Order: sequence, then structure tokens, then C-alpha cells
Amino acid sequence: MKVGFIGLGIMGSSMAQNLMNAGFDLVVDDVVVSKCEPLSAKGARVAQCCAEVARLSDVIISIVLDTPDVEAVLFDPDGVAEGLSSGKVVVDMTTISPEATEEFAKRLAEQGIDMLDAPVSGGDKGAREGTLAIMVGGKKEVFERCLPLFNAMGKNVVHVGSNGDGQRVKTANQIVCGLNILAMTEAFLFAKKAGLDLETVHKVISSGAAGSWMLTNLGPKVLEEDYSPGFKITLQSKDLRIAWESLQALGIPLEGTQLTNRLFREAAEKGLGEQGTQGLINLFDV
Amino acid sequence: MKVGFIGLGIMGSSMAQNLMNAGFDLVVDDVVVSKCEPLSAKGARVAQCCAEVARLSDVIISIVLDTPDVEAVLFDPDGVAEGLSSGKVVVDMTTISPEATEEFAKRLAEQGIDMLDAPVSGGDKGAREGTLAIMVGGKKEVFERCLPLFNAMGKNVVHVGSNGDGQRVKTANQIVCGLNILAMTEAFLFAKKAGLDLETVHKVISSGAAGSWMLTNLGPKVLEEDYSPGFKITLQSKDLRIAWESLQALGIPLEGTQLTNRLFREAAEKGLGEQGTQGLINLFDV
Repeated sequence: MKVGFIGLGIMGSSMAQNLMNAGFDLVVDDVVVSKCEPLSAKGARVAQCCAEVARLSDVIISIVLDTPDVEAVLFDPDGVAEGLSSGKVVVDMTTISPEATEEFAKRLAEQGIDMLDAPVSGGDKGAREGTLAIMVGGKKEVFERCLPLFNAMGKNVVHVGSNGDGQRVKTANQIVCGLNILAMTEAFLFAKKAGLDLETVHKVISSGAAGSWMLTNLGPKVLEEDYSPGFKITLQSKDLRIAWESLQALGIPLEGTQLTNRLFREAAEKGLGEQGTQGLINLFDV
Repeated sequence: MKVGFIGLGIMGSSMAQNLMNAGFDLVVDDVVVSKCEPLSAKGARVAQCCAEVARLSDVIISIVLDTPDVEAVLFDPDGVAEGLSSGKVVVDMTTISPEATEEFAKRLAEQGIDMLDAPVSGGDKGAREGTLAIMVGGKKEVFERCLPLFNAMGKNVVHVGSNGDGQRVKTANQIVCGLNILAMTEAFLFAKKAGLDLETVHKVISSGAAGSWMLTNLGPKVLEEDYSPGFKITLQSKDLRIAWESLQALGIPLEGTQLTNRLFREAAEKGLGEQGTQGLINLFDV
């Protein structure tokens, strides 16, 4: 099976690498051409445009930034849609608007093409180690055809419903992530201001009812003042904007997500966008 | 070593039981006398008042409800302070105000008595299984003398600083717990309203970056609509009130804790106080 892979950022590059390690033939593309080099050096073919990726592949995977980027990858001139033909499958793994995903799937279906939405969770670490959670929306039989690909990139791969539902489960996921990061942030700010030893605090609270993936994986980075991105504040902000828009559309404007949406946006506006999400703590002057 | 144990609620009864299992001689007391019966049946002595607990014990442990309850246990007529004599140690494991803890320790020090504050985390499950995290403030040598007791009740037992610092670390812990519960709550509310299968959502998001003790341990209870208390909403509300007061006193009114403090208080006021913290979801009409 020939696999096209569009988008070689922090997540995509590791995921593409894991597909190659699993023996899949890759055709890759990224708007920043230099990002293709490490995979090219290992034998991946570099395409000239997204349409070429689609022409050369059976399954075309994209993991880019935001809803408009996915739309551009799929439907711009020289986009994926121009290279598609019967039997090919489009798998978008970007986290984007559930409603837009439904619309993209509909447009592709008019071309006779199946699409899956398959956003992921687990951060750069999960991407590197091939342990991502992957939540997939779309037809069950298409999901099953793509399962070997998903299994090369993730550990907890679940078909969650029809087109858009992968994104909706991801929204639920990001609602939790945003608030769990805020939880860690406020606890550290309190501990710092109260004059406690942060390392001790982290050690004790990680092991009990306050324990979380965020505390375990990002807590030590905060202690070392390492704000390099596993997952960037700009992207978390984008995901929370999607979550907040979804909550409003559903008529349930929940205040926790309203708060995290605002705080991450403020962090991005303050110039912290390229930091990892643990950098939220730098929004506060304590 | 004779151990006095005052307060046999959900947490205290399991912790006292674990002390007996480890071979310690227990003298117990609770305002609700019937709560002493299970331990009495296994050989614990039941005292008539807190002063008698103190007279009969080398170390007096209390785990009651709130700051005024600890004050009453220690300093009311027939309270612990009346039964103390040189060499005895008071260990309060209730989660209460750090500042009040400092004051209680000071009053006991005037009697020549050492006190430790040793609040716990890990819920009813941690109490039953003897896997609590225990965060201890007070003199190091007193901590070390009491370590065999702590080890019988918990797994992650850490001396975190001087009197009050155990409570401060617990405050940090509860800041995280409150927001992690809210995170789970908002994700479930969104998923429900979006028409997703809650069990699938829970399975997928627990395994990735959204993972938390709360999702793992309380998520399944929400799915089964089991709102029986591991840790009651009234108590979480009390802990968040303490956290919010501490943040204000420190001049850092962090909005996440402000929100959880308000929501848990509203839940208690709405009559959900006796439910477990997972019952926060019942505050919302979705």
C-alpha cells in the first residue's frame, strides 16, 4: 500500500517515520520543503504538490494546522482532490472543526472518495513512540481498511462514529487537556508563591488523586523551565477555540472551557504561542 | 506504640483499620459512637472523649472535617490538649487551613507538644488499599518517629516542610483535583450533548494526554450514574474554599480555582453535597 503523507511538523514527522518503520512506502509533502529531507534520506518520495501525493498514493494522510489549512490541502488548485481517483481514501489527522470535517467528507463523497477524520492525542512523545490515541470518524469498513496504518502510529485506535465524530471525541479530549494544564499551572503558581519546594510538590501530588498525564509529562518540564514544544500553545489555543465554538453551538457555554480558551488565546497573543503548552504558566506574573 | 485515632469517616475508618492490620494498638473515638463499633469488634479500645484518647496514646491522629472541627477536637473541654503530656505527638490528617494549622501547632508547642500536619490524597480507594499520598509538615525528627504509622496508611509519604506546609502541599493538590474533575465533567457534558457514545469517549481520552486519576477512577462511576461518595462534594468544596482563601491571601486570585470553588459550592448548595465529587456533573442541566 502506497501512503501519502502531507504535513511533517512535530507530530507528522514522527508519525510518518513510524509508518516507514512499519514497512509502508511513503510519498511526502510539506509546505516547508526542508522538512521532507529526513524522510527522503530514508527512502520516502518527495512530491511536488498535494495533487501529486494523491496521484501516487492509495491512502492520503494529512496532519497540518487548522481548518483552513486542511481545506487548502484538499481543495486548492494542485490540492489532493485533483489527484484522487476511485478507491483512494483521504485520512485527515489534523484537529479541526467537526462541522467543517463533515463538509469536506461530503465534498469528497461527491467525487466517490471516502474520507476518515482521525485526530490524535498523546503529544510528541506519543507520536515518536507510536503510542498515540487515534479517534476515527467515518465508515467502519474504510476504518478497517486503514487500520494497519493507524496501528503503526498509535496504540489506542478506536472507531468512534461517522464523519466528524473523530473530531468531536478529540474536542472532548482537548476540553480535558486544557483544564488539566490549567490545573497544573495554578498548583505550581500557588506552590511557588507559598514558598514550597516545587519538586517535592510535584512528586507528592502526581502520585495521588491529582495525578494526570500533564503532571507526569509536562510537570518536570516546568520544573526545569523547559518550554520547548511537545504541543504548541498556538495549537492548543486553536483546539480550545474549536471546543468553545462547539459548546456555544450546542447551547452549553461551559465556563471551564471558556476560561481555558481565553487564557491560551491570551498566552498566544502575549508571544508565548511557540512554547509548549506547559508555557501557559508564563502568562502569569507570580 | 499506642495510637489514638479520632474521626472514623470514610477515610479515617479505613486508615485506622490499616494501622490495626500493621499491628498497632488503637484507641478510637468519633462523635458518632456507632462508627467505633467495627474497629472495637477487632480489638480497638473506644475512648469516652478526645482527652481520654490523648491520655491513653503516644501518638494522637485526627482526621475530621474542617478547621473548626480540628480546633474542637484539640482544644475544647475534654479535648486532646487536656490529655497530653510530655513526649506525645499530635498528627492532624484533616485538610484544613494552613494558617490555622500553624496556630494550633504553636499552641501545642507552648504545652511542649510536637504536632505534625499530614493531610492525605488518594480518596477512599487509597485509604482502603493503604496507598495514600501523605504530605507532612513539622519537625523532621518527629516525622521520622511517626513514619511507621504513615507507612501503614500510605505509599508516597513525604516530609514537605515545617508546620502548615503539609496543608499547603495539599492545597496545591486540591487545586489540581478540582480542575481535573471539572475537566472530566465538561468533556462528558459536551460528549453527551454532541450525541457521542460516552463509554467510547471515556475509553479513548483516558489513554492519551487527557488521562488523569479522575478520569480513570471517577469516569466509570459517571458512566454508571454511580454518585456514591469516595470523596464528598461538601469536602471538596471545603478544600477549594481553603485554596481560594489562600490564593487571595497570597495576592494571586487564579481564575480556575475561583471557578471550581464557586461550582462546588453551588453543587453543595443545590443539595449534591453528600454525592461523590463525580456528582459535580449533576449541577448542570444538559
